[in-house]
Amino acid sequence: MSSDEAEIREIVRRWQAATEAGDTATVLALMSEDVVFLTAGRAPMSKADFAANSATPPGAARPHFAIQQQIHEVQVDGDQAFMWSKLEVAITPAGADKATLRSGHTLTVFKRIAGRWLLARDANLLVAKPNS
Amino acid sequence: MSSDEAEIREIVRRWQAATEAGDTATVLALMSEDVVFLTAGRAPMSKADFAANSATPPGAARPHFAIQQQIHEVQVDGDQAFMWSKLEVAITPAGADKATLRSGHTLTVFKRIAGRWLLARDANLLVAKPNS
Repeated sequence: MSSDEAEIREIVRRWQAATEAGDTATVLALMSEDVVFLTAGRAPMSKADFAANSATPPGAARPHFAIQQQIHEVQVDGDQAFMWSKLEVAITPAGADKATLRSGHTLTVFKRIAGRWLLARDANLLVAKPNS
Repeated sequence: MSSDEAEIREIVRRWQAATEAGDTATVLALMSEDVVFLTAGRAPMSKADFAANSATPPGAARPHFAIQQQIHEVQVDGDQAFMWSKLEVAITPAGADKATLRSGHTLTVFKRIAGRWLLARDANLLVAKPNS
């Protein structure tokens, strides 16, 4: 594995850990300023949109996140890379005893900006999964 | 616009024209052997899957395709590139008078293989759109 691929996999690991810890500032630091998040049936989201969606309303308890991600491939060329992964996210609202599960694939573009790899584009194909 | 970007836009134009013309062989020639198509709620599709899905059953008339695609960006680095686009596809089954509309964004990876740009990975976020 190249050092670039290792750095990108480390971003994914830190992103997951920060999301599970509710550390939005760390997640935001792992993406480019011009990042675009694409999902099915919704408008593209910017970095500001991501921050707003990640904010817990004042006084509210934050939901619990559990993330499993299997990286199928990372391919780097120059200062751009793409990753294909399978992702499963379980979100349990505060006080609830059952998680909402979403599962599916992602196609993600990373860019090296000022020497650091950052997530720059993300297509998230996750759909709701029955919670047995 | 770089010549690489121009070549990639030309692939998109040829893909669209060949799809509308029912020319699956030309579409297949525009993708890499290891291409992966990702969609929401379905298993990843290979080139063989794409060919099987594009085949019209013997004796059946092929549906009519009308495609509108707006390319938001193409970014090339070395032998890899990505494209973000907005896509709308109208499919009218033979004999039907109303089209099924699907609309949404795509994130696509192209690779230069043996000197030719080919579509290599595609995340298709299209969802059904009400047909007014």
